[in-house]
Amino acid sequence: MAESWTFLDTSEPNFRPLVVIELAKGTKEETIAWFTKRIVDKKGNGGAQLLVKPLVTENGDENIYLVGASHLRLLLGAEAVGLVKECNDNSMRAFTYSSRKTFKDFADDNHDFLTMAECQYIIKHELENLRAKDEKMIPGYPQAKLYPGKSIVRRLLTSGILVQIFPLHDREELKKLRHSWYGRVKVGYQPLDEIRSYFGETIALYFGFLEYFTFALVPMAVIGIPYYVFAWEDYDKYVMFATFNLLWSTVILEVWKRICAIMTYRWGTLLMKRQFEEPRPGFRGVLGVNPVTGREEPVYSSIRRQIRIYLVSLPFVCLCLYFSLYVMMIYFDLEQWALDYHEENESNLSNLMLYVPSIIYAVVIEIMNRIYRYAAEFLTSWENHRLESSYQNHLILKVLVFNFLNCFASLFYIAFVLFDMKLLRQSLATLLITSQILNQFAESLLPYWLQKRHKKRMKKRVCSLKTDMDMSLVEQVNLEKEMGTYFGTFDDYLELFLQFGYVSLFSCVYPLAAVFAVLNNITEIYSDALKMCRVYKRPFAEPTANIGVWQLAFETMSVISVVTNCMLIGMSPQVNALFPDSKMDLVLTVALVEHLLLAIKFIMAFVIPDKPRDIQIKLAKLEFESLEALKQQVRVTVKSIVG
Amino acid sequence: MAESWTFLDTSEPNFRPLVVIELAKGTKEETIAWFTKRIVDKKGNGGAQLLVKPLVTENGDENIYLVGASHLRLLLGAEAVGLVKECNDNSMRAFTYSSRKTFKDFADDNHDFLTMAECQYIIKHELENLRAKDEKMIPGYPQAKLYPGKSIVRRLLTSGILVQIFPLHDREELKKLRHSWYGRVKVGYQPLDEIRSYFGETIALYFGFLEYFTFALVPMAVIGIPYYVFAWEDYDKYVMFATFNLLWSTVILEVWKRICAIMTYRWGTLLMKRQFEEPRPGFRGVLGVNPVTGREEPVYSSIRRQIRIYLVSLPFVCLCLYFSLYVMMIYFDLEQWALDYHEENESNLSNLMLYVPSIIYAVVIEIMNRIYRYAAEFLTSWENHRLESSYQNHLILKVLVFNFLNCFASLFYIAFVLFDMKLLRQSLATLLITSQILNQFAESLLPYWLQKRHKKRMKKRVCSLKTDMDMSLVEQVNLEKEMGTYFGTFDDYLELFLQFGYVSLFSCVYPLAAVFAVLNNITEIYSDALKMCRVYKRPFAEPTANIGVWQLAFETMSVISVVTNCMLIGMSPQVNALFPDSKMDLVLTVALVEHLLLAIKFIMAFVIPDKPRDIQIKLAKLEFESLEALKQQVRVTVKSIVG
Repeated sequence: MAESWTFLDTSEPNFRPLVVIELAKGTKEETIAWFTKRIVDKKGNGGAQLLVKPLVTENGDENIYLVGASHLRLLLGAEAVGLVKECNDNSMRAFTYSSRKTFKDFADDNHDFLTMAECQYIIKHELENLRAKDEKMIPGYPQAKLYPGKSIVRRLLTSGILVQIFPLHDREELKKLRHSWYGRVKVGYQPLDEIRSYFGETIALYFGFLEYFTFALVPMAVIGIPYYVFAWEDYDKYVMFATFNLLWSTVILEVWKRICAIMTYRWGTLLMKRQFEEPRPGFRGVLGVNPVTGREEPVYSSIRRQIRIYLVSLPFVCLCLYFSLYVMMIYFDLEQWALDYHEENESNLSNLMLYVPSIIYAVVIEIMNRIYRYAAEFLTSWENHRLESSYQNHLILKVLVFNFLNCFASLFYIAFVLFDMKLLRQSLATLLITSQILNQFAESLLPYWLQKRHKKRMKKRVCSLKTDMDMSLVEQVNLEKEMGTYFGTFDDYLELFLQFGYVSLFSCVYPLAAVFAVLNNITEIYSDALKMCRVYKRPFAEPTANIGVWQLAFETMSVISVVTNCMLIGMSPQVNALFPDSKMDLVLTVALVEHLLLAIKFIMAFVIPDKPRDIQIKLAKLEFESLEALKQQVRVTVKSIVG
Repeated sequence: MAESWTFLDTSEPNFRPLVVIELAKGTKEETIAWFTKRIVDKKGNGGAQLLVKPLVTENGDENIYLVGASHLRLLLGAEAVGLVKECNDNSMRAFTYSSRKTFKDFADDNHDFLTMAECQYIIKHELENLRAKDEKMIPGYPQAKLYPGKSIVRRLLTSGILVQIFPLHDREELKKLRHSWYGRVKVGYQPLDEIRSYFGETIALYFGFLEYFTFALVPMAVIGIPYYVFAWEDYDKYVMFATFNLLWSTVILEVWKRICAIMTYRWGTLLMKRQFEEPRPGFRGVLGVNPVTGREEPVYSSIRRQIRIYLVSLPFVCLCLYFSLYVMMIYFDLEQWALDYHEENESNLSNLMLYVPSIIYAVVIEIMNRIYRYAAEFLTSWENHRLESSYQNHLILKVLVFNFLNCFASLFYIAFVLFDMKLLRQSLATLLITSQILNQFAESLLPYWLQKRHKKRMKKRVCSLKTDMDMSLVEQVNLEKEMGTYFGTFDDYLELFLQFGYVSLFSCVYPLAAVFAVLNNITEIYSDALKMCRVYKRPFAEPTANIGVWQLAFETMSVISVVTNCMLIGMSPQVNALFPDSKMDLVLTVALVEHLLLAIKFIMAFVIPDKPRDIQIKLAKLEFESLEALKQQVRVTVKSIVG
């Protein structure tokens, strides 16, 4: 089978492995033969027209295949996925094979025209679009049903025959990337373009946001330091700091949109057309006709989904929120108990004991967040969303609400029920620092250590092998297939979101939060980079034009922080002293200021354009060109009719 | 010249006049010859390939031309403007001549396939896109410069050679429309589809909104009546009414988006692609190169425009706002004086005198609004916006802010500075009713009466004419060219917007406002219909998919009304009595409720989908089809390369 490769252009001499397919041990021969035939088969016969080579290992009971493609095939695939590349005249355009000569750096023998991440994305796209023809089931597995148009790879995955598909690392490139990313100690920007061409746009955009956000926090941190050093407690200084914070957070979120547009324009994803979304792999339903495509596919009534969402998920989330509040009340009891103990037997130990409840609470919060996360994933999957994007949005919403309450409820309670600013400051500091330390540990250092141990073990095993293939490739594949899978940027954004909450919600009480956030983020960049390069399998690149729902989440947080900060300032004794006679006047003034600030926020968000002027012009130019092309077409029609 | 018509299909026997062009008296012969030649010339020669016929009048010194087009030409024009029509399978698609057979009701001899409004829109589009080739000026007028690509009609208009272009009424159709619209006394819906096919989408959408808004106000009015009849003053009843109002206003604005989507989908404008916007006629600048089109056209630096906006317009608007507040203070002095006078000499006269200041103020407000409107138009035009849409947005913003302050500042002052609920109710009633009466009079009755008088005079003049053309056509053109021009839906929407303010901002103080609004709107529908059919020239149809910036304006008003109503309820003696000890608690509670209501509003706006599910599916289907077509194209490319 391995000898029967099909080439698009038969002159392709070198097979460059791009993607690894791991089939379950003991997969039937007929299944393998059928699947590999479909992969190499011509497009006209319903194949993907890719190249496949088995990886020969020592024991031979592992079914690992390497997938590649000829250069020409990749170029045609680039057109199919709608890749946007730079032209000779510096404009960005959707790549088409017929206009290939107009693209920058294009040459028929330049195999670097497409980045490796792009090639892997194209192969993934082609594999996922390998569809059943008239097969009723997967050969050899009668229980794995197929129907015309069903994605074969998705069915193989859900029925467990296909263990995993992942793109291969490029050791050379990775080494270069590591060096320029975190290899040398330097102050400066990350090599975002290189990260993008290696890991794809979604991950590069996360690192871009992390870097931007860190830089944006620096002014807040710088202004916050003297408040701590000189122990400033003046009312007007705090008002100034809070006002600056509120306007600043609006500005940075708006400016991010512009920076994001500049980056994604350069990367081409700003112009990429949205592809039609297939049902997500976990979607179940009876076979019916999709009203949009007219194709047969599983159908699930949207009313039944709504019932599941509103009658099961919503009550469950509310219950979890209630439980979280209950735990919070226990924490306050503990806190009180520790305080009492400290007053009764004052000693170094009791002094230390004062911090114990907060630390325990921070740990419990982390644990609850993680458990809830599993529950939310289970529930959202059970809600049976047809589209991955809708699944993601519901999951993010569930997780965000719970995490928000879990992390901030105690702070709200301390601030607006207990009115204890000292305790608020102390809790804020404990929560922020504990969660940062826990995250750094759980996210990268622990997996890195596990990975290192595993690697040593693997090396020993691999060294004793003898095969006809390149030694290091077998070794590499065997190493990488055991590596952890990176499940997307969700957790990383969530961490930043909560950090933003700590910094902005109570900024006028604890100006030092920004300093900790900056310090954390600098190490976060390095530990996340380490994680991506060393700990996890290489993820498939995902083209994206923005950070999506996270932009909305950050903006919502910044609106909430206007409210909390205004209330905090209104409650401060200094401001209360300004209105000695009438508390009513005080609260009305605070309410007025709050509404004014909110209005200014919305006006600012409205006035600052989301895209810089030159990008706007470039986009308008493209739109104009496509309109002109359409008109030209009409003109041709007219001519062909009237001569 | 008039004899040298060019036909697309020479079998076109009947010339149906669609659009009237009036040139200035004494326009040079060479100009007329050149212009009409360009209109009838073939597309290939840069003409518009339309039909032109001079209107022969008695004295002959009037240069009036009738423009029409062959059926085939109109169909090709429909493709060029991107008209969307219904197909045989009930889906909506962009019309193309080559796929004409798949469209519903299409037949080569069915001249009703395109509505008259659509035909006139196509002719307008073709005339406006008649562009200069190598002419350096308009023949006969060296001062009227041209450059390649400049719209000839726009230059003729700005240099005063072209007096006006307007579409002809269709007496038969109009009669039918009038009959089904307001001809018989009936309770029921307006014939929106007929209005749309006669006047176009923008106007039909306005009447649709007016009707929808009136129906939506009915529940508010019904609930409001008992408050007036039984003089309810209980706190909880008012809270209920206000809460209902706030949620209701959110719901109706969201539901309107859905209804609007249903209508504009049926009309095809929801799917229509945005055309590239040309500079507006009033735009001035030195000749340069447009960075988007690469064409020569006037260019004006955006920085200079920003300077004009922020350094001249903004201060001027602020000054006007200050002046308006100043006038308001005078009104309050007057009011006080009338009150004093009434107390000193109590009589029927003095009782009546109490209402005089309010009435005077209402009249002054109307006058100030109208004067300011001219100033705003002048300033916005001087700001020199390149696009009509940007001009409109800046104008609407200026006018809205001023009108809002002018109409509501006194009410805010009474409510939140004087705390005088009785005066608030009285002022609200006076302002609302006076402005409604004034509007109805100034908007339709006055012009109608003027029009009637003018018509009689015209009839006498026309009857003495003798020409070879159809008598009634000459009469009709002469009548219509003297009619007033309808300047768009701006004033009509503005009126509704202010009315919405009167109803919602202080709804918990004056529940009867909704009743007056409903009554006004019922007569408004009839007087506006009268105005459209009898008073004004027929306007060109403008395809549009929604009510644009007005949706935002209404939503903003509904957010502001949450704030005002919460404050009003918080200030009511009944609520104050609930918190006898602590005013602080009261205000905090009110603030909490307000934020909750606002949060609910935003969540509701987010959760209610903007388009009904079936429209979403239809849109998704179209998108899917175009993606599939693209893929097909790629597949064909692949095949042609690899065989």
